[in-house]
Amino acid sequence: MEKTYKVDGMTCNGCAKSVERAITTAATTAIVKVNLEKKQITVTGIDDDVLIAQAVEAAGFDYEGPVLS
Amino acid sequence: MEKTYKVDGMTCNGCAKSVERAITTAATTAIVKVNLEKKQITVTGIDDDVLIAQAVEAAGFDYEGPVLS
Repeated sequence: MEKTYKVDGMTCNGCAKSVERAITTAATTAIVKVNLEKKQITVTGIDDDVLIAQAVEAAGFDYEGPVLS
Repeated sequence: MEKTYKVDGMTCNGCAKSVERAITTAATTAIVKVNLEKKQITVTGIDDDVLIAQAVEAAGFDYEGPVLS
């Protein structure tokens, strides 16, 4: 299960790491990959949009929702 | 009460906003100012090093401890 989300506000590797860490702290099984250019993150290991949205927002970034593939 | 902490890993305004948001989410009364150049944050409104350390680390940054003034 892999799901991609749009996340705004990430501009550098520090931001990318922050989003990753916020999600993996909230859900230890999650694996997060960040694409800064596309402003997208891809999450495997969990399937919980609400948890991801809350973690992203709590870390100071803007959760814009799932990206349909 | 104002207290300054050293935080590593913040490189842009997105990072700064992330640290701010992580702390104010954990402690709603906190007011956080980030100095990217000095790699320092100044926190007023709460006095809880452990909470600040946990929020900073959960957001993917490196809490290095209080700065003595």
